Amino acid sequence: MVIAIDMMGGDFAPLEAVKGVLQYFSQENAPAYLTLIGDQSTIQQLLTENNVSFDRVKVIHADQVIGMHEHPTKALKEKQQSSIAIGFQLLASGKADAFISAGNTGAMLVGTLFIIKALEGVLRPTISTIIPKENGGTGLLLDVGLNADCKPEQLNQFAVMGSIYAQLILGIDTPRVGLINVGEEEGKGNLLAQAAYPLLKENKQVNFIGNIEGRDILMDKADVMVCEGFTGNILLKFAESLYEVSQKKQIKDEYFERFNFETYGGTPILGVAKPVVIGHGISKAKAFRNMILVAQKMLEKDVLGKMKEALQ
Amino acid sequence: MVIAIDMMGGDFAPLEAVKGVLQYFSQENAPAYLTLIGDQSTIQQLLTENNVSFDRVKVIHADQVIGMHEHPTKALKEKQQSSIAIGFQLLASGKADAFISAGNTGAMLVGTLFIIKALEGVLRPTISTIIPKENGGTGLLLDVGLNADCKPEQLNQFAVMGSIYAQLILGIDTPRVGLINVGEEEGKGNLLAQAAYPLLKENKQVNFIGNIEGRDILMDKADVMVCEGFTGNILLKFAESLYEVSQKKQIKDEYFERFNFETYGGTPILGVAKPVVIGHGISKAKAFRNMILVAQKMLEKDVLGKMKEALQ
Repeated sequence: MVIAIDMMGGDFAPLEAVKGVLQYFSQENAPAYLTLIGDQSTIQQLLTENNVSFDRVKVIHADQVIGMHEHPTKALKEKQQSSIAIGFQLLASGKADAFISAGNTGAMLVGTLFIIKALEGVLRPTISTIIPKENGGTGLLLDVGLNADCKPEQLNQFAVMGSIYAQLILGIDTPRVGLINVGEEEGKGNLLAQAAYPLLKENKQVNFIGNIEGRDILMDKADVMVCEGFTGNILLKFAESLYEVSQKKQIKDEYFERFNFETYGGTPILGVAKPVVIGHGISKAKAFRNMILVAQKMLEKDVLGKMKEALQ
Repeated sequence: MVIAIDMMGGDFAPLEAVKGVLQYFSQENAPAYLTLIGDQSTIQQLLTENNVSFDRVKVIHADQVIGMHEHPTKALKEKQQSSIAIGFQLLASGKADAFISAGNTGAMLVGTLFIIKALEGVLRPTISTIIPKENGGTGLLLDVGLNADCKPEQLNQFAVMGSIYAQLILGIDTPRVGLINVGEEEGKGNLLAQAAYPLLKENKQVNFIGNIEGRDILMDKADVMVCEGFTGNILLKFAESLYEVSQKKQIKDEYFERFNFETYGGTPILGVAKPVVIGHGISKAKAFRNMILVAQKMLEKDVLGKMKEALQ
């Protein structure tokens, strides 16, 4: 398998990306070949300095970089020689099997949706986030911002895609799906949640446990937590701020350390034809290594193939 | 001023309610006369035992109690002799100027909306919550659940009502109003947020600072944070769970103590004709005292009159 990496994306590129590559290869199980996209001489020099062996690594030169604050559509169109544009070319042409970047999130989303496209049968792709559970477990929250307005059928599909991801990547058997809502009883909620509930209840492909409330999100209630991307995005960023708060207050608790999302290694876009993993701008070596691992697992377990099968 | 109190509402009624009354009168500035509604002999005995003087207190007997889990509309209709029903009768007839309860929230909302009714000019009343800010300050989040689906004009009114409350009750001069959204720039968001933004921007009655994100909610960015009741309710309950988490993890930080919402003393319903304050079911003495103080301040500062004026 070949995983392409945008070496120029993120606040600490390309050094931390190189270190992430090194961390990846220093593991026992590192079956992927990596295609590193970016400024060739800089990357090669960093590889040499960091003693990364060249036999599993290929460097492809990119003349341009899409900045973190550039307009996504415009930049992707105009900067054909950027590391992100080249990554999508490699992925679309089959020269890479997955693509990873911690660069301009918008450009990554635009490239994924318009160059790689949605899986057949998927109404709208979605992005998710890991939610650290108070009991030490891990939950999945989706959508976290790709779809600010949703239809009930989309939430139903998010539940299926989230369940497959939770099972195959997070290793949760028969993940419990909860619909994020303002009350526990069926019939509660806004119009969207009211309409999504019966769809989820009748969906044989998921283990639907009913509505969950805001107070259940950090608790061991549901593994896959479904909502539209407006609420999900606000919850994600609220959760991220807990790490910042714990740092400011000098609260040394490992639970709050887990809200440091930079360590998780990025969010795959679910429901698209090929694995694309988007990392946080502040990604460091560990995050890059984890992103490579997520892409590797998604390929090994054919996560997207399973989603296609389930939603056709 | 006469404040009516449902002595039978909440998990620790009527003892903690009596203690709250005692705490209220042990302050220097306690101008209100209190009408205590509930089981007369029990309350009178508790008043005597706790040395509450009778000259500023009147007890009105209620034969019935609406349980915490009864159906709100049905219970309020059928239990005319319940403490909550009697409270609304006193308020509606002018025998009380404000009404407080830590009992069945649904019944309190139904009573407020259908017996007391919305202020003239108010599209929909709203409930808010205090949000402890990381820097020690206090923010106001609204709506937190009364209106799961909203129109842009409602969010615009929430901003006005929230600003008046923040100024007169929380003592924040020219409160900064933020629209909770998925990004900072104008044009971001779901259809509701996109449509609400220009209304807020042009609203001369509020100090609108633009969109705020999930990461800004605990930070010193906006004082009044506006969203529909779906997102707001989920955020409120998520925030409440932080206290639970900090207890479980034995994190002794006074910031997380502030997420113990039972100490705040209830949420007034904004945009209704008369002050109604709804407390948490787990309210103890301090919470009851604080609820009385909120009602007192709302009357002293004519908060609802100011809202009516602003929204006509």
